Amino acid sequence: MNYRFANRLSQLSTSPLRENAKKNLSPQADTISLAYGYPADDSFPIEKLEKISKELYEGTPARFLQYGPTEGLPELRQLLKKRLSDVLNCGSSEDELLITSGSTQAMDLAVKALCNEGDIVLCEEQTFVGAVNAVKSYGAVPVGLPMMGESIDTIKLEEVLAKDTEQRIKMIYLIPTFQNPLGTSMPLEKRKEVYQLAQKYQVIIYEDDPYGDLLYEGETIPKIKTFDTDGLVIYVGSFSKILAPGSRLGFALAPSELLDKMILGKQNSDSHTNFYWQSVATEYIRKYDFEQHILDLRDLYREKFLLMMSCLDKIDPALLNYIRPQGGFFLCCKMGEQIDPQSFYHYLEAKKVFVIPGNMMSVTGIGYEHYFRLNFTNPTEKEIMAGTQIIEEALLQTSCTSKNKLAVNE
Amino acid sequence: MNYRFANRLSQLSTSPLRENAKKNLSPQADTISLAYGYPADDSFPIEKLEKISKELYEGTPARFLQYGPTEGLPELRQLLKKRLSDVLNCGSSEDELLITSGSTQAMDLAVKALCNEGDIVLCEEQTFVGAVNAVKSYGAVPVGLPMMGESIDTIKLEEVLAKDTEQRIKMIYLIPTFQNPLGTSMPLEKRKEVYQLAQKYQVIIYEDDPYGDLLYEGETIPKIKTFDTDGLVIYVGSFSKILAPGSRLGFALAPSELLDKMILGKQNSDSHTNFYWQSVATEYIRKYDFEQHILDLRDLYREKFLLMMSCLDKIDPALLNYIRPQGGFFLCCKMGEQIDPQSFYHYLEAKKVFVIPGNMMSVTGIGYEHYFRLNFTNPTEKEIMAGTQIIEEALLQTSCTSKNKLAVNE
Repeated sequence: MNYRFANRLSQLSTSPLRENAKKNLSPQADTISLAYGYPADDSFPIEKLEKISKELYEGTPARFLQYGPTEGLPELRQLLKKRLSDVLNCGSSEDELLITSGSTQAMDLAVKALCNEGDIVLCEEQTFVGAVNAVKSYGAVPVGLPMMGESIDTIKLEEVLAKDTEQRIKMIYLIPTFQNPLGTSMPLEKRKEVYQLAQKYQVIIYEDDPYGDLLYEGETIPKIKTFDTDGLVIYVGSFSKILAPGSRLGFALAPSELLDKMILGKQNSDSHTNFYWQSVATEYIRKYDFEQHILDLRDLYREKFLLMMSCLDKIDPALLNYIRPQGGFFLCCKMGEQIDPQSFYHYLEAKKVFVIPGNMMSVTGIGYEHYFRLNFTNPTEKEIMAGTQIIEEALLQTSCTSKNKLAVNE
Repeated sequence: MNYRFANRLSQLSTSPLRENAKKNLSPQADTISLAYGYPADDSFPIEKLEKISKELYEGTPARFLQYGPTEGLPELRQLLKKRLSDVLNCGSSEDELLITSGSTQAMDLAVKALCNEGDIVLCEEQTFVGAVNAVKSYGAVPVGLPMMGESIDTIKLEEVLAKDTEQRIKMIYLIPTFQNPLGTSMPLEKRKEVYQLAQKYQVIIYEDDPYGDLLYEGETIPKIKTFDTDGLVIYVGSFSKILAPGSRLGFALAPSELLDKMILGKQNSDSHTNFYWQSVATEYIRKYDFEQHILDLRDLYREKFLLMMSCLDKIDPALLNYIRPQGGFFLCCKMGEQIDPQSFYHYLEAKKVFVIPGNMMSVTGIGYEHYFRLNFTNPTEKEIMAGTQIIEEALLQTSCTSKNKLAVNE
């Protein structure tokens, strides 16, 4: 059979996560992965989850075994709305909350609701490729904008918006807090500026915030959603980084009128998110101190965060620089221009150390070969130390200067 | 904000399931729902699920709490492939299996993989509206074909395929076994004919089989997938009707080359299906006798099936006829032409008895107002008896003859 596939597929690239997830099921002792955005296995509150699970089965299990509403479990939606309002000052009476199957699904649904073929979604040029692919999968076009320091370049943003006389730009996709892969957080002033531009040009902002709770230094910057007087912002969070990614629980807080369209899309996509995990999350928030759990996670990850930075600090800045974030899951590194990226990645691969090359985290897939992303939450301290040491080795071995020196020595 | 939504949304209709699911969370004692395709609450093997859940938490819970591969848990995929091969004779060495978030997601992914805007998916004119909406949500066009007895009209099918010189028809969506809403099963000869047409015109067949295991009378008819020498058939099954819909577990067996494209689509849609339920299903199949479980379900539902038919048999055939299926979840009824459907549905609603009107289960949404669908698996025996009695009452009260008679009597 000569299959005739949809055109959109030729635009989609496979996620590096996928291959790794397969490997992860039969982990090889001699590999060090600093690549993927996995939480630490010991971050899962297993005893509490076990207890909750037991109680759910002893209660009325038919409630989570049967079909349920597309929007999600009312109690969980209520608790999340309350937390978003109390802790983050997000959400107005115009907003409603939808439980999604991971936060990735929220992006799929937002694009489904807003974009015709050929419509445009603006985003940071270096960004989460899953979101870029969601845009492409509906025949819409992701357009990356350059960064100006810790924010998307707002001058360029206004330029692009002003030029869009046909109104093809439907959405601005941003990860304002602990950006993936950069780690940076957009300053408050820039957040306000972006919101004002969205107001002026009547474009939706998608505020993707999977890492927002994981702050290790400094202060929480108000979310863009906090300024949302006009119903322009879809705020999206996830339980993947703060409870367990296997749960596939995410949520979107958005103006009802817009969220209703996403709910309509979800009906025909997976009917609803699994109710076992919705019930578990509900009970977790009800019975335990969720804010304390987040503080514990911050403590757990802060140590790894500081360790990885102290390891990288030992490397000659002519070989490697990195952006110092204040939270999240990643450090974004840039190797010296004299280093040949291909040789560097090959060297790492031969030593079984895995990182994500910058081109795999960008809209166009080119121009960022000197960047790579490191995850510090999943590896052990020993792996962080060994992995960064091999990275230093790789940098030394593959920089042109070093090569020449080696040639002389040989 | 004046939201600018995607055009596809104007094509999508909301599922009646959705509103009901909301009600179901706070059931009203005085309503009788014969409407929705819910399994019986007492069909869930709660004790076994509870035991498995306990053991999973005592084992290595990080395995289902962490991210996993998009394809699904390798053990579950293996077990399902084996069952499909051993029990149903489905699947060749060319086929692979993908775990989906409910079988609805498999349809979403198949359309995503195959259809450009304007491409056509053929289906039965009366069919599952979720599938129709999945087609529309990618800008593709569902085209319903009439039934000829228990099968889609194959003469009409060939006519339509032959006329498609531009090759816009990408897929034929069918529910060959215990069709929804008709209950009918396509005879073996017709299945072969449809497969031969798909071969001749090189079109994919999507064989949706959520009810296939639930046979109450007669013999299992070989699946279309059993003839699939050419890699044309996506066979889709579900745990929703045979384990628990809350699990959101479905699966697609399809040629690897085609399935790989669906996997690519799933990556950007929800990354993977929740691993807790994938693990539970794996252990259930491993530790318990799954075939016996299905026999038990057949016994449970056969009684309700026979009861509902015996209740309907008491109604004057001038008022109501129904198609006698051999399995599944539904009975499809047709009221006499003299009955005013609107008055009939209003009468039922006033009496708080819920059924699905035929127009809500058809591609065009018109022309089937005299049909309605009844579910017999979810209601209790008492509800089946009371519900069908109110249906008889409604038929009597709203047939034109009765109306006239009433007028005379008043």
